[in-house]
Amino acid sequence: MKIVVDAMGGDFAPKVNVDGAIDALREFADVEIVLAGPQALLEETIGAYADQDAYAKVKDRLSIVDAPEVISTEEHPVMALRRKKNSTFVVGMDIVRRKEAQAFVSAGSTGALMAGAMFKIGRIKGIARPALATMLPVPGRPLLLVDAGANTDCKPSWIVQFAMMGSIYADKVMGIKNPQVGLLNIGVEAAKGNEQAQKTYELMEKPQPFAFCGNVEARDALAGKCDVLAADGFVGNVLLKNTEGVISMLFGLLKDGLMGSAKGKVAALLAKDTFKGLKKSFDSTEVGGAPLLGVEGAVIKAHGNSNARAIFCAIRQARQVVDGGVVDLIREEVSRLSVGEEE
Amino acid sequence: MKIVVDAMGGDFAPKVNVDGAIDALREFADVEIVLAGPQALLEETIGAYADQDAYAKVKDRLSIVDAPEVISTEEHPVMALRRKKNSTFVVGMDIVRRKEAQAFVSAGSTGALMAGAMFKIGRIKGIARPALATMLPVPGRPLLLVDAGANTDCKPSWIVQFAMMGSIYADKVMGIKNPQVGLLNIGVEAAKGNEQAQKTYELMEKPQPFAFCGNVEARDALAGKCDVLAADGFVGNVLLKNTEGVISMLFGLLKDGLMGSAKGKVAALLAKDTFKGLKKSFDSTEVGGAPLLGVEGAVIKAHGNSNARAIFCAIRQARQVVDGGVVDLIREEVSRLSVGEEE
Repeated sequence: MKIVVDAMGGDFAPKVNVDGAIDALREFADVEIVLAGPQALLEETIGAYADQDAYAKVKDRLSIVDAPEVISTEEHPVMALRRKKNSTFVVGMDIVRRKEAQAFVSAGSTGALMAGAMFKIGRIKGIARPALATMLPVPGRPLLLVDAGANTDCKPSWIVQFAMMGSIYADKVMGIKNPQVGLLNIGVEAAKGNEQAQKTYELMEKPQPFAFCGNVEARDALAGKCDVLAADGFVGNVLLKNTEGVISMLFGLLKDGLMGSAKGKVAALLAKDTFKGLKKSFDSTEVGGAPLLGVEGAVIKAHGNSNARAIFCAIRQARQVVDGGVVDLIREEVSRLSVGEEE
Repeated sequence: MKIVVDAMGGDFAPKVNVDGAIDALREFADVEIVLAGPQALLEETIGAYADQDAYAKVKDRLSIVDAPEVISTEEHPVMALRRKKNSTFVVGMDIVRRKEAQAFVSAGSTGALMAGAMFKIGRIKGIARPALATMLPVPGRPLLLVDAGANTDCKPSWIVQFAMMGSIYADKVMGIKNPQVGLLNIGVEAAKGNEQAQKTYELMEKPQPFAFCGNVEARDALAGKCDVLAADGFVGNVLLKNTEGVISMLFGLLKDGLMGSAKGKVAALLAKDTFKGLKKSFDSTEVGGAPLLGVEGAVIKAHGNSNARAIFCAIRQARQVVDGGVVDLIREEVSRLSVGEEE
């Protein structure tokens, strides 16, 4: 399979992008990678890869497509995509659109990634809106949140599609058999929540090609009540950022608390491994990037602050999406959904 | 001032309600309390108060209003209020409606409290919807979330009213001068968020009787970017429950992690005070109850699992709302709001 990597996206591009890509080629013999970025700069960066012997063994599977323009996170996504025809996004996604590659990975602008995927790669027929899926940084049983922020003001039928796509992803990529899909709500009863949630619940209860386990409160979702949490993108994004905020606040408080006393300092030393393990389980590097589900290709958004390992993980994830046939499955299942009148 | 306490609300009623009420009378000489509940049961419970000498000194300020019926959290609030004319809610709130008391405190059904406050006590003129305000269990700089779940599908102008009421409460009860009011959103720019958030932002930017500090993401709110976080009640409730969920998850993981090794167990022992302090700062008992803002009285919802201390704190809070003249201030300020066309 062929995966296009935006070599210029993220805070530490192109070095970590190139390193992560070569690392992935070394790990996965079935993967070819196309780096999208300024040709000369990328050649130079490849020349600086730490293990040139190892690189020599995989170089046949690495190519560069010249894309001298970069779209920054500050630019208006749609305008930038229109103006910058030679950007990594436009050039890279065109390759996926032409079916010459199956996946696109970027740590750059989320807006440009979503707009580009919509307009360049294209939606899967029948999908109203592609959605961003994110693994919530919850250790133990993983929890997939869809939509994590791609769409605000969602129609109930869109959320049903998010649920279906999330269910397929959880099965094929996360390895969860018969994933339980919950609807994010503020109570468990059918009549709970806002109008959107109530109508979505009604649709979810109809025969659907996924296992609906009812309304789930945020608290219970984190306690493992479901595998996939379907939500409006606005509410989903609030949930995601709040989770990150609370975790960071608690680690900060714990550190301050322990460092404030001699006993605490000793405790911190003794508990070092536990803290490290905990921190690692919340590390977005290992959690991987966020797949954009519902477009005609495997599209992965890696964190803006990705290091080489995070880029590697995002590429591995793209490979799993392709391997699992996620795009084809979504295409097949969309027609089986029971959705509302408004579509 | 006179405060009505629902003696039958909460998991440990009436004992903790009676204990908390007498404790409050002992602490605050300017408070009179009316206990609403079944007369005989309450007399018996008062007779079992641990310090009868102390009780004797405050008994002149304690009275009982017979309310033999109880509305459970499982009942439909509006139906129950209609059917159970002798319930603690109906009897107790009638006293506030007649202006014979200034406040109502309950650890019972949130739905019945809100519906009762709306229909029995009544909205402040000009207020579209009363809102539940909750102190987020964030230590250090406190954060007031309004609305925490009383209203779903909010109009933008309602959220502006929540902001104003939250600002007054933060000033008069929490003691924060010139509280900074943020709008919960998924980005900081004016154009971010769903339609509701964008329209609310437009209104908030007009001259308002509170200090609007712009859109605030959940992450930044917890990091202390604002004092009051105005939100739609659906989104606010998701935020609240998610915060509780993440905190509980992290404490659980930490405990499991430490208890898994001998070193960890020693660390846990040494860090006991730090953990205790942390846990206490998240304890809803000390955080207090949730005021329902926008009705013609001080109405406080205490946690369902309140102990005597939590009931005491909720009564103290009601006293502060009355002392601070919060209801009068809201009545005065509502006309000064710049709101949208739809009202």
